Amino acid sequence: MSAQRSVKLRLFSLNCWGIRYLSRHCSQRYQMIAELLDREQHDIALLQEVWSETDYLYLKRTLATSHPFTHYFRSGVIGSGLAVFSKHRIQDALLYQYSLNGYPYMIHHGDWFGGKAVGLVILNVCGMRAHIYVTHLHAEYCRMNDTYLPHRTVQAWELLNFIRHTSADADLVILGGDLNMHPQDLGMRLLRAHSGLRDCYMETDTFDGCEDGITLIADNTFTKKKDLLPFEKGIRIDYILMKGSNSVCLKCESMSTTKGSVPGKPFPYSDHESLTSELLVQHTEGMDRTRERHNDSSDTGAPVRELVEVVSEARGVVKEGFRQTERLQLMAMCLLAVGLAFLLLPATTLPWLSHHSHCVVSYSLLGLLGALGLAMVAAGALLYVLFTAQLKALRGTEASMKLVSANLQERDGGCLTEEIGDGDGDEEEEEAEAGIMPSTPPHSPHGDARSQQPTPLDCEE
Amino acid sequence: MSAQRSVKLRLFSLNCWGIRYLSRHCSQRYQMIAELLDREQHDIALLQEVWSETDYLYLKRTLATSHPFTHYFRSGVIGSGLAVFSKHRIQDALLYQYSLNGYPYMIHHGDWFGGKAVGLVILNVCGMRAHIYVTHLHAEYCRMNDTYLPHRTVQAWELLNFIRHTSADADLVILGGDLNMHPQDLGMRLLRAHSGLRDCYMETDTFDGCEDGITLIADNTFTKKKDLLPFEKGIRIDYILMKGSNSVCLKCESMSTTKGSVPGKPFPYSDHESLTSELLVQHTEGMDRTRERHNDSSDTGAPVRELVEVVSEARGVVKEGFRQTERLQLMAMCLLAVGLAFLLLPATTLPWLSHHSHCVVSYSLLGLLGALGLAMVAAGALLYVLFTAQLKALRGTEASMKLVSANLQERDGGCLTEEIGDGDGDEEEEEAEAGIMPSTPPHSPHGDARSQQPTPLDCEE
Repeated sequence: MSAQRSVKLRLFSLNCWGIRYLSRHCSQRYQMIAELLDREQHDIALLQEVWSETDYLYLKRTLATSHPFTHYFRSGVIGSGLAVFSKHRIQDALLYQYSLNGYPYMIHHGDWFGGKAVGLVILNVCGMRAHIYVTHLHAEYCRMNDTYLPHRTVQAWELLNFIRHTSADADLVILGGDLNMHPQDLGMRLLRAHSGLRDCYMETDTFDGCEDGITLIADNTFTKKKDLLPFEKGIRIDYILMKGSNSVCLKCESMSTTKGSVPGKPFPYSDHESLTSELLVQHTEGMDRTRERHNDSSDTGAPVRELVEVVSEARGVVKEGFRQTERLQLMAMCLLAVGLAFLLLPATTLPWLSHHSHCVVSYSLLGLLGALGLAMVAAGALLYVLFTAQLKALRGTEASMKLVSANLQERDGGCLTEEIGDGDGDEEEEEAEAGIMPSTPPHSPHGDARSQQPTPLDCEE
Repeated sequence: MSAQRSVKLRLFSLNCWGIRYLSRHCSQRYQMIAELLDREQHDIALLQEVWSETDYLYLKRTLATSHPFTHYFRSGVIGSGLAVFSKHRIQDALLYQYSLNGYPYMIHHGDWFGGKAVGLVILNVCGMRAHIYVTHLHAEYCRMNDTYLPHRTVQAWELLNFIRHTSADADLVILGGDLNMHPQDLGMRLLRAHSGLRDCYMETDTFDGCEDGITLIADNTFTKKKDLLPFEKGIRIDYILMKGSNSVCLKCESMSTTKGSVPGKPFPYSDHESLTSELLVQHTEGMDRTRERHNDSSDTGAPVRELVEVVSEARGVVKEGFRQTERLQLMAMCLLAVGLAFLLLPATTLPWLSHHSHCVVSYSLLGLLGALGLAMVAAGALLYVLFTAQLKALRGTEASMKLVSANLQERDGGCLTEEIGDGDGDEEEEEAEAGIMPSTPPHSPHGDARSQQPTPLDCEE
């Protein structure tokens, strides 16, 4: 016999836009955010872009009564910007930094320095094990020509895999944050389909907030209107997603967003709107949750065809990212080569110049060439290292996607294999590597022709 | 009623020493390794230092019959070097790259470029869910003055946390690889205590191999004898560790290592010895494994005092690493400042020189100074970025250690807190941040004195 308990869980998520000395009214806004959190008493607040540890410590001190449990995730050069404030004890935490996150030389974008990551905290909520994830993915600076799309797709893939692999014993799973993706973007479809997470905004009984749930709105005084075009009213890129388990049923009863201006205050909390979700958590005790979970922890309930198709689409993006990065790697090599030529020029010309020491201009020119050559060689070498590492990450992600996709097709009886191949002719090689379809060996050290099936083990009943 | 099944599982682990053009007899040794794996038909082979993808693809083709399922983990600039070959279907895979892994300027050590990581593959072994981890930690180049100790300790911590958080639904857990730690080193004690993994060598019924299970031996023709001192015979740094679950009992029936030379071959397989473990897997079906696991997935069976003490020791090492990295960061800033001075010197001297254009030597000297200044500024800035990121990782690890330690003490009734404090006077601040002990707020936006306990939720039975 099983008993049922109901718990209300109030969640909050906000991208705080906390770049000290650059974000406008930063410290005043942190005061406003602290007041809001202290007043509203959410169970869990998930914050992004808390870039400065000083600001985090201010929030920690200020919220010590309302949210006595907190964790700050540190990664990258500046930090991940991720912070969790909770009324419930934080039992454990883990950080996973994404393998791809833009380029360090795009200093004006700055994402690379942020060390974008997903943070997990494990809470005990009325005896239930709640796995709370907070993340912030790479920004989209130009939707028409989004050079960061492969990076964001890799991040979405790593995010969902991290959640899949670390939530096996969770009663409930919550993900909140700035995903920098529109609801129907590839990464969002990938995330929802493969993680089984449901969008609170799509499921809420009541909603009070901006039209279409948008969180980057034209009416916010901090928003640059031209950045939103062609979406005049705004876009929805911040989310609270949820997933129950075999013993816990989750329902979003209400959801709200801020709407730009804050009553009685001169400016909004941030350039993003905040999200608040109230969930009804119904916990059925005494159920055996292991069996279903154990048979296949990746079973999200979505049709296999849909799962495979969305991975196939993502693989296309990652492959294009690979080609794009290969071109960048080639340019880095060219830079290196030209730099070496500039360095060699002074070295070869110097003996000639030593016989014509009156050539002042030539000497300074050669010095300049040498310095330029040195800079180019150093930059070329560093960029080569950077792009080589990025190619590794892209190749690794594609292999991981192949593995998941091939296993899904295998589970589905292989009927999708031919239909949803990516047609680049290397499917057989890829599937063998993915661990699904054994490839024919060109030779065997012993030259024997054993069966391609794994040797049966001693399984004694 | 529950039924019991027994399965034999043969595991293999080898650091292949596969640096193309640098490791001696590389391709011949890969042929030997392929022959060995094909002949011995282990269930799972865990390989490290397979640096070249070409070599991995050679192994994959050659072992397509004996080990049809394989996965190669790509990370860093060169790769992680980790590969898994299996007779059992690989259902899923995940890679976790360590946040600290040496320094890029230590090119002769090369670890940084390897992108050291832990790879997880999930296998279906006779209906059981086997989580197989393979890893390779940062090398120890000088035991007397091991500057990489904080990095390796962080890696050990991240490794055990990754295993803890991703193995909740595993029936059995295996970790194999080159851990670059002696059996009683801090990282090994940390790993064993907090992951619950048991050392196959310590538990095996029968053992056939090198004395004391050493895997880097003086008798191996590839080993530099001076690198082993003061351990004349050799050291044990390669391991196969194992852990069962509530439904699966693991027993190491036999274990063996190679002993340097290979009969009939001119040289050994590698500069490391290989490990082979034969495990007896006893699977009791029908047990409810959720409860125990669910109550506390971090419960490894070790006494709390031991767990807290070893974390406290590790925190000391991480703190020392922090101080060491702060000094390096300061040196990077000095380099940057001197470089700027070198750059400014030509700029300020140039107007003077323009009136004395006969000064050829001065011009070339200034050019040289300028180039040197530029190089120093660039190097200083890059090193500053590197060390800042490393400080973030060290600080994050320490916060994670604090969280785990504080929760352990809380679970144990807090009686250990005073005894095993690290005495640096910031315990209160730290514990509040770790999410355990609410700190007194200096002020509250509302000025009220609410209870420091979280507000009770609506828990309706």
